[in-house]
Amino acid sequence: MTNIGFNKPYFSGSEIMYIQDAVAQKHISGNGKYTKLCHSFFEKRYGFRKCLLTTSCTDALEMAAILLDLKEGDEVILPSFTFVSTANAFVLRGAKIIFSDSRTNHPAIDEEKIASLITPNTKAIVVVHYAGVACNMDKIMELATEHNLFVIEDAAQAIDSFYTNNEGIKKPLGSVGHLAAFSFHETKNIISGEGGMLVINDPKFIDRAEIIWEKGTNRSAFFRGEVDKYGWVDIGSSFLPSDIIAAFLYAQLERLDYIQTRRKEIWENYFLGLLPLAERGVIQLPQIPEYACNNAHMFYIICKDIDKRTELVDFLKSQNINAVFHYQSLHKSKFYEEKHDNRKLPNCDFFSDTLLRLPFYFELSVEEQDIVINAIKEFFNQQ
Amino acid sequence: MTNIGFNKPYFSGSEIMYIQDAVAQKHISGNGKYTKLCHSFFEKRYGFRKCLLTTSCTDALEMAAILLDLKEGDEVILPSFTFVSTANAFVLRGAKIIFSDSRTNHPAIDEEKIASLITPNTKAIVVVHYAGVACNMDKIMELATEHNLFVIEDAAQAIDSFYTNNEGIKKPLGSVGHLAAFSFHETKNIISGEGGMLVINDPKFIDRAEIIWEKGTNRSAFFRGEVDKYGWVDIGSSFLPSDIIAAFLYAQLERLDYIQTRRKEIWENYFLGLLPLAERGVIQLPQIPEYACNNAHMFYIICKDIDKRTELVDFLKSQNINAVFHYQSLHKSKFYEEKHDNRKLPNCDFFSDTLLRLPFYFELSVEEQDIVINAIKEFFNQQ
Repeated sequence: MTNIGFNKPYFSGSEIMYIQDAVAQKHISGNGKYTKLCHSFFEKRYGFRKCLLTTSCTDALEMAAILLDLKEGDEVILPSFTFVSTANAFVLRGAKIIFSDSRTNHPAIDEEKIASLITPNTKAIVVVHYAGVACNMDKIMELATEHNLFVIEDAAQAIDSFYTNNEGIKKPLGSVGHLAAFSFHETKNIISGEGGMLVINDPKFIDRAEIIWEKGTNRSAFFRGEVDKYGWVDIGSSFLPSDIIAAFLYAQLERLDYIQTRRKEIWENYFLGLLPLAERGVIQLPQIPEYACNNAHMFYIICKDIDKRTELVDFLKSQNINAVFHYQSLHKSKFYEEKHDNRKLPNCDFFSDTLLRLPFYFELSVEEQDIVINAIKEFFNQQ
Repeated sequence: MTNIGFNKPYFSGSEIMYIQDAVAQKHISGNGKYTKLCHSFFEKRYGFRKCLLTTSCTDALEMAAILLDLKEGDEVILPSFTFVSTANAFVLRGAKIIFSDSRTNHPAIDEEKIASLITPNTKAIVVVHYAGVACNMDKIMELATEHNLFVIEDAAQAIDSFYTNNEGIKKPLGSVGHLAAFSFHETKNIISGEGGMLVINDPKFIDRAEIIWEKGTNRSAFFRGEVDKYGWVDIGSSFLPSDIIAAFLYAQLERLDYIQTRRKEIWENYFLGLLPLAERGVIQLPQIPEYACNNAHMFYIICKDIDKRTELVDFLKSQNINAVFHYQSLHKSKFYEEKHDNRKLPNCDFFSDTLLRLPFYFELSVEEQDIVINAIKEFFNQQ
């Protein structure tokens, strides 16, 4: 019986060649040739104001938290249905996390519920473009402007995805908020093993971001000849990845369109194959709002309840198919449960209990997909 | 005229092969095959209790700071003559840095001056084994025991270096303090571009270190089958490097003895070649205390004053030789000057002004070294 794993990293074939070149450059620490190539790729293709590669998306979020100058008692609003790093990055700076619920029909933050969570201590809203699907950024940015808040886009899953605003203008995700964070972890569309990137759209953050990136020193300005000595001027960390990582990433970026085309085919195939089950009402399929688009980061289905999902996972496992659930509500985590303000977040809990991600990777063949689709159909036909 | 750079990264030749293997394993995120090989290399060779690769030495120091549970107002004693990250890692946790002076004859922390800096708020002492030369660890550990403090070894430069204690027992640096941090930045003896490692010698920190390493989740315990679900249990970050980085590092570790033998020859050659100048009293050469040994991380000379050093740097530059100074006193940095308690740290300032590092890398030939030695001799003979 074919074994169908959940994820398989894709390799373009040029990764090793570019790493060899990075070695030949005799510069494999941070900010070498390939780091610069990656930065300019993103800045040109998506119009991001300023890009800085980081060792992970977690680290990009930590840079964002440092840039916001958060202090003990400051509040940051973010969804409870997200990866721990979305919250941890801000907890590390002493902020209080105010968890918001998901929408009823989508795991992303419910824009309508944010206003009631804003207090005089609120400093920022962090939105997560879950599955690469845009949040309603017009509403978020309006709230932010009204209350003088910063918006950070956790765009970990959202490479090459877009938002169409009220005026009909299509903008790349990561270009709308004041800051944005991307991931190149090996589970993403474009990978470098571990890796991430901070995008700085608000120009007032650019100079300080460079300093924080370089361990709190003004080394970047020094190399540009703007200061004649460099030293310790701010807090910071070593956020730069090795140029080996950047070389690997660049080899992937060159194949971005090719990768995206194939992934979208896989996504469409799942959607059409499972549509009959959705029409019967036994599962729900992902919904893409009109203002969003699909970057084919993942394919998930929504089961009726946790028991049905557990049965389905077990059935698929018996067919050698590895389907996996996703985030567990952070407001109920061991770490945060006591710190949470007791509000119920039922939609978040619902998606924690019922969302199931299907095998999804570049090399997944139509035949393998059919095996997955048929197994799910078989499961529900037995009911 | 030959151009002699300050540093050239060394490549063993197996790095690319191991990266290809990591890719073939289809596991290039953190904690893959090569990460585990690196961990066990260090644990076996040096008897380190527990090792965790990190994306940088900075990040290893940040893990140490998190493990110490530092709170606002806690004090950490460390030398002012060090890299910014030694201090930044603890500042990020809200600690107050109490800078200590260097010894008169060595840039490392003056063990005799630490006692007077200890207050009821002191939580830890961070020692830096500058140039890979051991600090007097018996004295440091005695102070720590007496005052119930933690000791962190900043062993960024100290791979394969040793300390001989009062009882004549020779211990690897990084195995003496409660925690230790190593660097594999491309300027070090063993490199991975960017990279580091946390060593945990005090067993009470091991479980939590694994959690902090894995973004504050108990994922490691989950994969060992110790818990049946993993979630958010603590603060943390994404400290794991990609297995691509670990594969690169492992190729270097296999050549450790070979690399060290050659580097020690280079060091000895500099020492003997420059001894006549030291005997004339125009420069000082590095001193290795009896309890320490030489891991040939760098070769430095000490000039009479900053003017002499500037003249020498310029003269060497005119001969196409790149010699560079090192740390600038952190207590006088733009970031910390106002936070420092006004104590003068004259030895630290002296080494900031007078220490000069000579070109030093694996491939540096005897002929190139002779050019450097002769240029320095020529400079002082002109005086």
